[in-house]
Amino acid sequence: MMTLTIDSDRIESELKHLATFSDAPPPAITRVLFTETELRARNYIRELMKSANLEIREDAVGNIFGRWIGSQHNLPAVATGSHIDAIPFSGMYDGTVGVIGAIEAVRALQDANNNPQRSIEIIMFTSEEPTRFGLGCLGSRAMAGVLSKDDLLALRDADDMQFDEVRQQAGYTQSLETVIMLQGTYHAFVELHIEQGTRLENSGNTIGIVTAIAAPATLRIVIQGDGGHAGAVLMPNRRDALPAVAEIVLAVEKIAQLSGSPDSVATVGLVDVYPNAVNSIPSRVLLEIDIRDIDLETRDAMVVEIQSTVNAVCENRQLSSEITILNADKPCHAGATIVETVEAVTKELNYSSQKLVSRAYHDALFMAQICPTSMIFVPSENGYSHRPEEFTSLEDITKGVKVLAHTLAHLSTQT
Amino acid sequence: MMTLTIDSDRIESELKHLATFSDAPPPAITRVLFTETELRARNYIRELMKSANLEIREDAVGNIFGRWIGSQHNLPAVATGSHIDAIPFSGMYDGTVGVIGAIEAVRALQDANNNPQRSIEIIMFTSEEPTRFGLGCLGSRAMAGVLSKDDLLALRDADDMQFDEVRQQAGYTQSLETVIMLQGTYHAFVELHIEQGTRLENSGNTIGIVTAIAAPATLRIVIQGDGGHAGAVLMPNRRDALPAVAEIVLAVEKIAQLSGSPDSVATVGLVDVYPNAVNSIPSRVLLEIDIRDIDLETRDAMVVEIQSTVNAVCENRQLSSEITILNADKPCHAGATIVETVEAVTKELNYSSQKLVSRAYHDALFMAQICPTSMIFVPSENGYSHRPEEFTSLEDITKGVKVLAHTLAHLSTQT
Repeated sequence: MMTLTIDSDRIESELKHLATFSDAPPPAITRVLFTETELRARNYIRELMKSANLEIREDAVGNIFGRWIGSQHNLPAVATGSHIDAIPFSGMYDGTVGVIGAIEAVRALQDANNNPQRSIEIIMFTSEEPTRFGLGCLGSRAMAGVLSKDDLLALRDADDMQFDEVRQQAGYTQSLETVIMLQGTYHAFVELHIEQGTRLENSGNTIGIVTAIAAPATLRIVIQGDGGHAGAVLMPNRRDALPAVAEIVLAVEKIAQLSGSPDSVATVGLVDVYPNAVNSIPSRVLLEIDIRDIDLETRDAMVVEIQSTVNAVCENRQLSSEITILNADKPCHAGATIVETVEAVTKELNYSSQKLVSRAYHDALFMAQICPTSMIFVPSENGYSHRPEEFTSLEDITKGVKVLAHTLAHLSTQT
Repeated sequence: MMTLTIDSDRIESELKHLATFSDAPPPAITRVLFTETELRARNYIRELMKSANLEIREDAVGNIFGRWIGSQHNLPAVATGSHIDAIPFSGMYDGTVGVIGAIEAVRALQDANNNPQRSIEIIMFTSEEPTRFGLGCLGSRAMAGVLSKDDLLALRDADDMQFDEVRQQAGYTQSLETVIMLQGTYHAFVELHIEQGTRLENSGNTIGIVTAIAAPATLRIVIQGDGGHAGAVLMPNRRDALPAVAEIVLAVEKIAQLSGSPDSVATVGLVDVYPNAVNSIPSRVLLEIDIRDIDLETRDAMVVEIQSTVNAVCENRQLSSEITILNADKPCHAGATIVETVEAVTKELNYSSQKLVSRAYHDALFMAQICPTSMIFVPSENGYSHRPEEFTSLEDITKGVKVLAHTLAHLSTQT
């Protein structure tokens, strides 16, 4: 096995510098798609890719590709990468480890004069987080053709700005049709990511090898009642939207707890109350629910039960409701060869590892529609993620990058 | 009885013009204290006062006073007025009818050459709505000395801006100590306002004569749990703040329904979820609860029951909570002479009327600490208020203004 030197200090300083592009007070990170801050962070990623002598290309939705041309550059490339966008008040490792880590892996291979046969391409995906347009994995979904041009044109943010307008303002003016990639465009895709759970921490293993990604569904529900002055409208005359939402929140919790599967999770993560003034009865509430399971049938059964709960609660309270399924994706299974490669590399490096199912959403879920994929997980302290306390030790990140670098080297020589 | 001509068209056009100062799309009104929009609306009120030849004074918190000097100008003046600030997405009549109506009443008296003995003073109160600084009746509270200088200095808005800074930026730079008015500063205060309920509509009466104002209390509650990725943290490992809030919302509704008093109302009007992203477990939720009754004991019993519910729910779910009583005001009773005067005027004008208790919060509640007060209510269609559909017919507004004008004339000649 060749010797690769991973520069931990460089990874640390680059992650820290990337964390300075944030709209929240440190240590919290807020980096929302195509905001001024996110555009500056993109620039930083471009600079890092350029200094690693990668050939940069950007597509119409803002995915950034940095290619290290291999000797067999007519063969499909090996891809890796992740995202740098961050939900409000989250942490500095989610996604970023897979982008900075991929750049470091390529630099380590370059330093070792390990020139690839297949080209190696780093992808910084647009909007893995659903913050701005209500839909996660925007970039990889579009690449996989799961989001059509019409779907993209219909996307609007909370300020009613069109995705199409926003991306053009950000400098992405190409035709949206050019984003789709056919199956076979890449030989393989492997993504380095923090676990965002406690399984590695609990087992004491350093590397998680992802064999499948759980299937998320997202519901948006609008409950419409009657507003009015909180002092003047007596209790029997009210059609307050908020107590209905309270019943739904409690039902969602119970449905996930009692699904029969220990892997079921359901979360009401977003609640917007109108008019949201202390002396005003809520006339309307918008909520978004995230529902996941490894098993598609269990997941869909939860979605159906939540829908009927909403209908029953609203009928009982004489409110109207509108339910939109924002997405309901199928789980994906990892490519066997990639899993074997990662496993062999980890063993050779003498790192402890385990196979895992990812319950969190990743761009790898959609890349799986283009080519075989897998993911390399590193431990998350206390399982914390999407919060400022998110933490993975530099030692673990370095090990993850080393596994990624060797895996890329192996995959790039596969015929 | 003298003949007064109330110019309905002028009232209508002035209310409509005032409605154009709004940060929400019509017909919704959003006009929040010391925003650029509210400052422009203040300017409009100043212009109207000036064109009615009133002597304008403004105090350190932004209350605007327009005085029509009477022949006995050393006697305490008769005051009237209301507010022009509006909670987000509300309507165009709440408060504004009492400001534009007062100006029209004075103009009608002037046109009839009915010069007052006691001066008549129109007050446009600062921030009757609690939107920006979490506290309603800011202007009249400060005038009544219920808010001390230190209380005013402690006020901050959601962006952590100090009230003191904001008011100075708005041009109100006088010392805060100068706001307080001693008891007896005015001879009487009478406020014209929409009912914001359905009692007048149900009885078919045009004029409501307010004999008392119910006592509101406001609680701010912060529930703190643990955040995390909605996909990765399994249900048994969660300390989600939102289901606790759901239990509290349902308990608040039940506590008001079962208080034993048909007048009890309790409303969770404001809910702010952090980080409020669909794929993130809510780590923290801030909610504000408005609790009212005509009877102080019943009201306070509800407050205590809500506090103990919050504690029990959070203990059960291993969450922490922080409860702040933002205000807990005592009810006020109307001045007998004013009530008699309004009653006599209404009878002479041949308008149908009834006595009412106001369950909504008004500046008259705090003016009652300075001088005898009452209010004149006009009907609200469907009882709607604090929503864009808020409506009172021009005919009813005109009648209310006529009652106000005659009442002011009577009060101004009282010794």
